[in-house]
Amino acid sequence: MTAHPAQPTLEVPARVIPVPASLSPEAQAYLARGPLRVPPNPALDDIEDWRMRIAAIDQLMLARLAQSVQARPEGFQVDEISVGGRTVYVVTPPGLAPGDTRVYLDPHGGAFIIGGGELCRDTGIRTAAKLGMRVWSPDYRMPPDHPYPAAVDDCLAVYQALLRERRPHELVVGGVSAGGNLAAALILRARDEGLPMPAAAILLTPALDLSHSGDTFHTNLGVDTVLTGSDRSEMLLYAGGHDLRAPYLSPLFGDFRAGFPPALLASGTRDMLLSSTVRMHRALRAAGVPAELHVLEAAPHGFFGGNTPEDRELDNEVRRFIDVHCPPP
Amino acid sequence: MTAHPAQPTLEVPARVIPVPASLSPEAQAYLARGPLRVPPNPALDDIEDWRMRIAAIDQLMLARLAQSVQARPEGFQVDEISVGGRTVYVVTPPGLAPGDTRVYLDPHGGAFIIGGGELCRDTGIRTAAKLGMRVWSPDYRMPPDHPYPAAVDDCLAVYQALLRERRPHELVVGGVSAGGNLAAALILRARDEGLPMPAAAILLTPALDLSHSGDTFHTNLGVDTVLTGSDRSEMLLYAGGHDLRAPYLSPLFGDFRAGFPPALLASGTRDMLLSSTVRMHRALRAAGVPAELHVLEAAPHGFFGGNTPEDRELDNEVRRFIDVHCPPP
Repeated sequence: MTAHPAQPTLEVPARVIPVPASLSPEAQAYLARGPLRVPPNPALDDIEDWRMRIAAIDQLMLARLAQSVQARPEGFQVDEISVGGRTVYVVTPPGLAPGDTRVYLDPHGGAFIIGGGELCRDTGIRTAAKLGMRVWSPDYRMPPDHPYPAAVDDCLAVYQALLRERRPHELVVGGVSAGGNLAAALILRARDEGLPMPAAAILLTPALDLSHSGDTFHTNLGVDTVLTGSDRSEMLLYAGGHDLRAPYLSPLFGDFRAGFPPALLASGTRDMLLSSTVRMHRALRAAGVPAELHVLEAAPHGFFGGNTPEDRELDNEVRRFIDVHCPPP
Repeated sequence: MTAHPAQPTLEVPARVIPVPASLSPEAQAYLARGPLRVPPNPALDDIEDWRMRIAAIDQLMLARLAQSVQARPEGFQVDEISVGGRTVYVVTPPGLAPGDTRVYLDPHGGAFIIGGGELCRDTGIRTAAKLGMRVWSPDYRMPPDHPYPAAVDDCLAVYQALLRERRPHELVVGGVSAGGNLAAALILRARDEGLPMPAAAILLTPALDLSHSGDTFHTNLGVDTVLTGSDRSEMLLYAGGHDLRAPYLSPLFGDFRAGFPPALLASGTRDMLLSSTVRMHRALRAAGVPAELHVLEAAPHGFFGGNTPEDRELDNEVRRFIDVHCPPP
């Protein structure tokens, strides 16, 4: 008998990495904050501890939201509708052309466990402000009480509701981080269930591989100041025992030859999810799907927090891509 | 008086990085070789030492070329022409359609100091084999005897010779590494001198920033197994005392609003030049130049050596891009 040879490895010494002077002052300041410090995750089966932790993070984020209320975009109409018993925040930006019937379906981010309720409403407003589009922001179910496939089921139900109100070519599906996962997953589910495809998909620093098999999970560990650990408890909590590589959990492993809408993908050179993003780009293109890639210099997961020239340049790329594939009337 | 605050930094601990199992076996084997070991560079002013070092590397590469002669593409016609006293290898692939008058101008790579002569001829053959196109491979002058701007002058003279034989929309200019630098530099020079632009530019893992200001010069140091050091003596030797950030030396800092052809850019997540590539992509797009980006998972500088499925997938992207912007007759 022979043992399998060990997977070859590369030893990388410790390094000190400066904040690049080529970035905008705002992006430099964002990176200069250093790594986000997060307490360790609870044990996977300590549901009560997860509930407390999620509630604590939600409180923290709501407090931040309240503080930044003056910086919030104004004049947005927010209607709450119910789809399958879940709230969907329907956000209409001020000055939207009356005939602009397009909708951006935007499952929020938050590692599959946070970002619901008031934060979900806020996500919808911010996306509508960035894109100048009507946004549907679904308050989907989350762990620990509702692991996979609850979130995908909820997002798919909202997509089906949209299909009753709109034609598919008026719809864009997109998301950031875990929201990018859910956007891609709901598209694969919709396709497999015979539903028509939306006009475009927008996958921003997307969490497309819950098995964390990409190289930048290693190379950008310690380099990404936003995703700072190698613990993937949130993914396991969300997966609820399902195969992490199943396509509705990790859309990177889907078969795109059976169809996928034109897609814009974006990441940053410091992003732990850079590998997932570029691998998805390659997988889509190998399947003949029109897909374009944008990578921001030195950007960690989530880019630079949304309020830098670099973030706005990316917003402009997304608007342009949507206008090409889902043109305004 | 107050001192300027130090540029903030990030401390990244030592890590062990596995070769990703998602790569093809060929690409995994390429990465498993580990870091390329190169002796330290000579002192910048020790011209004789540089000559010996360059000759030694050339010998090593020629020996490898002789060994791999059976793996070399066959049936290529190679004509040697002279432009301004320099040899240009004109390579015609077998089976080229008689009416296909397109030419790919391909300044070779090699850190601005190696890759001339027989190696330059070989570069032309390999590019013609990859792209199925006629290639002009100029044997441009190099340091230590001929620093900047000799190489750009020579490449520009070849472009001018091509313009006498062809219409601009039949021309593509591209290159790998230092060749990508020279491709972009000659385009900027040509534009500034009022010459017409080629149909497309192909910038592969391009050395566009000799000042090494990009973030991945730090984050991918030790991660890139091909560019393994932070010594930039070759760049200084080539620049010959000129400002490293001058656009003909570092095309990343050019003004692209004054014109640049549609460009395909490619790099890898482990490439030291990833930052230079994505920054160029952003700079071109900010100027309204059609530019598309491809990033290969876990690829170091120069991708995976040219003979892996990943390399061939990139070749296919380049062929497709050329066929769109410089269609065959």
